[in-house]
Amino acid sequence: MKNNVDRDLPEDVMADLNYQPFKTTEIGHPEIQRVAPKVHVSTGDDKVVTDIKQVVKDTLQDGMTISFHHHFRNGDFVFNKVMREIIDGGYKDLTLAPSSLTGVMNDMVIEAIKAGTITHITSSGMRGSLGDFVSHGGLKNPVIFRSHGNRARAIEHGDIKIDVAFLGVPNADALGNANGMEGDAVFGSLGYALMDAQYANKVVLLTDNIVSYPNTPASIKQTQVDYVVKVDKVGDPDKIGSGATRFTKDPKELKIASTVNDVIVNSPYFKDGFSFQTGSGGAALAVTRYLRQAMIDNHIKASFALGGITKPTTDLLNEGLVDKVMDVQDFDKGAAESMHTNKNQQEIDASWYADPDNKGAMVDQLDVVILSALEIDTKFNVNVMSGSDGVIRGAIGGHQDAATAKLTIISAPLVRGRIATVVPDVTTIVTPGDSVDVLVTEYGIAINPKRKDLQEALGNLPGVPVYTISELQQLAEKKVGQPKPLEFTDRTVAMIEYRDGSIIDTIKEVKD
Amino acid sequence: MKNNVDRDLPEDVMADLNYQPFKTTEIGHPEIQRVAPKVHVSTGDDKVVTDIKQVVKDTLQDGMTISFHHHFRNGDFVFNKVMREIIDGGYKDLTLAPSSLTGVMNDMVIEAIKAGTITHITSSGMRGSLGDFVSHGGLKNPVIFRSHGNRARAIEHGDIKIDVAFLGVPNADALGNANGMEGDAVFGSLGYALMDAQYANKVVLLTDNIVSYPNTPASIKQTQVDYVVKVDKVGDPDKIGSGATRFTKDPKELKIASTVNDVIVNSPYFKDGFSFQTGSGGAALAVTRYLRQAMIDNHIKASFALGGITKPTTDLLNEGLVDKVMDVQDFDKGAAESMHTNKNQQEIDASWYADPDNKGAMVDQLDVVILSALEIDTKFNVNVMSGSDGVIRGAIGGHQDAATAKLTIISAPLVRGRIATVVPDVTTIVTPGDSVDVLVTEYGIAINPKRKDLQEALGNLPGVPVYTISELQQLAEKKVGQPKPLEFTDRTVAMIEYRDGSIIDTIKEVKD
Repeated sequence: MKNNVDRDLPEDVMADLNYQPFKTTEIGHPEIQRVAPKVHVSTGDDKVVTDIKQVVKDTLQDGMTISFHHHFRNGDFVFNKVMREIIDGGYKDLTLAPSSLTGVMNDMVIEAIKAGTITHITSSGMRGSLGDFVSHGGLKNPVIFRSHGNRARAIEHGDIKIDVAFLGVPNADALGNANGMEGDAVFGSLGYALMDAQYANKVVLLTDNIVSYPNTPASIKQTQVDYVVKVDKVGDPDKIGSGATRFTKDPKELKIASTVNDVIVNSPYFKDGFSFQTGSGGAALAVTRYLRQAMIDNHIKASFALGGITKPTTDLLNEGLVDKVMDVQDFDKGAAESMHTNKNQQEIDASWYADPDNKGAMVDQLDVVILSALEIDTKFNVNVMSGSDGVIRGAIGGHQDAATAKLTIISAPLVRGRIATVVPDVTTIVTPGDSVDVLVTEYGIAINPKRKDLQEALGNLPGVPVYTISELQQLAEKKVGQPKPLEFTDRTVAMIEYRDGSIIDTIKEVKD
Repeated sequence: MKNNVDRDLPEDVMADLNYQPFKTTEIGHPEIQRVAPKVHVSTGDDKVVTDIKQVVKDTLQDGMTISFHHHFRNGDFVFNKVMREIIDGGYKDLTLAPSSLTGVMNDMVIEAIKAGTITHITSSGMRGSLGDFVSHGGLKNPVIFRSHGNRARAIEHGDIKIDVAFLGVPNADALGNANGMEGDAVFGSLGYALMDAQYANKVVLLTDNIVSYPNTPASIKQTQVDYVVKVDKVGDPDKIGSGATRFTKDPKELKIASTVNDVIVNSPYFKDGFSFQTGSGGAALAVTRYLRQAMIDNHIKASFALGGITKPTTDLLNEGLVDKVMDVQDFDKGAAESMHTNKNQQEIDASWYADPDNKGAMVDQLDVVILSALEIDTKFNVNVMSGSDGVIRGAIGGHQDAATAKLTIISAPLVRGRIATVVPDVTTIVTPGDSVDVLVTEYGIAINPKRKDLQEALGNLPGVPVYTISELQQLAEKKVGQPKPLEFTDRTVAMIEYRDGSIIDTIKEVKD
């Protein structure tokens, strides 16, 4: 069975899991019956407990689906605390359905898989030892990778039915009113976790900071919460910020960022009231810096900035260059703090951010997005999931979702060390080329041939050579040569869903 | 069939509507499967329309359930505009399920009933010509009266399944992000309407003020909205405020208010961190004034004030005498404006306010509430629904819900003109005596015998005579005599649900 991006899909697994092959990036107008949780009624007076083990005992049974959020990133203390009790409790055959998995969770997930505690996983991504473990066949059932918007969709459809959500928060009152903005371990927006709070049958908050009732603003509400577990520390504030908080000084990255800015500024979308998502990382910060200057120079203001938010973006808000920041997650302390003080920085849940199956998500209104790539191929298909060795080492994140923007720019170096980024065929298709418009490399840009308008607008920019994507691929190949083909077994270790829940690709077990 | 407050219930109607008789005010710990709406998927780009008729045609079919909110109160222009199109469109057999009905809607509802357009109604209340019409048998099927918390419960259970919600808002962007705080016709909290926005299959916003995208704060979200209808005016700002905005000068009302304050201050609940709900009307404002002084004198601050909010209550917030205002509706412009500027005034939906079937509502945490009564009987049962002539002229509002407070005070004059308020048996039981603690009249107070602790605390207050409720009833009867018994036919014109959805009483057709 092949799907519309020409990937062979394993018919047995597709049938077992009741999957459809990916067809199109168009979502259309289906009518969707949403699902709702079971609620165990209470007046809410006895929610505070200190014994995680007891809460696990009261809520969990073999075969259930459990969830966590990843807003603490590598500063997370919650996942390991809870999973320790679950493994030690001897629970079996659980489905792990977090918003994503970060490196600090890897050892515990592997232990839980080996113990038979976790037998199914759905996540935005995985990296490091866990990606390696799964790619080498460590988990019997294929991992289901879903974008943030698709996870929201899957929860709202009932494809993911969370029995118990364990959600760490930097503050909560005794009934469970909580937000991500105050306390020691602040991370700002609770965007991804809001889905779990709304849809899980049982919601367990963990916090090191029980505040007086009623706690406001209440991003998570007492009407959603069953238990409030007091713990010593929910997270390490120093490790919550993800990656770069300073502009890159790498000349290659600066060149790419400056070219990305040229593409944006010369596109038809750079006008008063435009909107953008830049993402995180040193290069993204550099793009934001260039964009800021261009907005000042051209007297242009943005209506909104979207997505994972960084301080340089909230600086634009505070400068008045951006009217609203629509915030599903904050990548650094500065962005998290700004959410607390600037009422134009609106917390949004993952559904509002990117669920394709609703009445309009923020990404549907997005003009410009800059996304990264591990690989991009001559059909503009993008891989952000598997490495050049075929091993899982990435995350879909909002990649497929934000690629619905009117101008989707992939920003990536032509080669990384001895490895080509622009390739004949990506190892794993995450985002279909159909939703990608421009590739920006340090050598120049390639424009998706279906975008004649952009060919025209961007065809003759000074200092921005335009290539076909095949030319860029050949240039990359000339520099680093042709890699030896990867070898995989027939066994499927992961399914990559497109944001509509169809299968865009699979990942096979790597052959050593 | 009799229920636990000794009311005869019509077995045929009870069976037809699948109702249980009222048993107890205890909600217990049932496990509830919630329901969820159908969502018609769209990117949200074509929501703005100007033709109400076309929207009605696109969304409505015979037999459906439609809803409205009553936050505009008698300044509402939305209900009549929409119902005009629905009646003229010839639709039949609709269920009207608004959060409540205000006087300005009465003529149109009667016309719709006569036309066969509306055949079923559920509401918090009705007054004036509509109450009269229904009490005289104008609607074939019994009206279902539900408290605000019970309406939330019924929506979350699927007892009320809203097909199309028509919601007026003072602002919205083109995708439907909206709040109640900005524009000409502001009313502050959208508390009741948030239930409709979340649970209706189709949500139609009507506004006279389309603002730039994205509109924040978004109490109603684009993910919930199907249409944004631009109209000339959604409401009359001068008629949105309900009733009194000034303290009463009526000596009887002042005496009652001052005694209410004495009861609160001498109760075990008046201590730092206590919480209260005072409601609206001149007497409630007077209570708030007395309470303010008592709080200052005793160095006591409240953790929260709840409910329908008035400016004197938000003044307490701004003075620092109250930490949080939990706001399901605002009764005047001052309170609505304060919500915009004071982040400690938190908008809450009707479920969070008072739904008994969740994981804790605000009313479950309430220490003190002051409620009104049309009648209260010697079992402390309260009627806020039917007049002394047996005609429907009231609303449950949050009466049953807030009566779950630790100290529930009914504040009412002993007699009104030639009519006794304290009676042997109320015409219609809305709130069972079991949840009422103290009656305060201008002559003195009566304490529910089951509250020995309050008998002790309040038994010897200077200037606060304590009577049994029977003594107060006899005193009232002495003043105004025994009224002629009301005469009703056998026909049931309304069912009064308790907040758990059981039947606490019915209203019969009045015999002329």
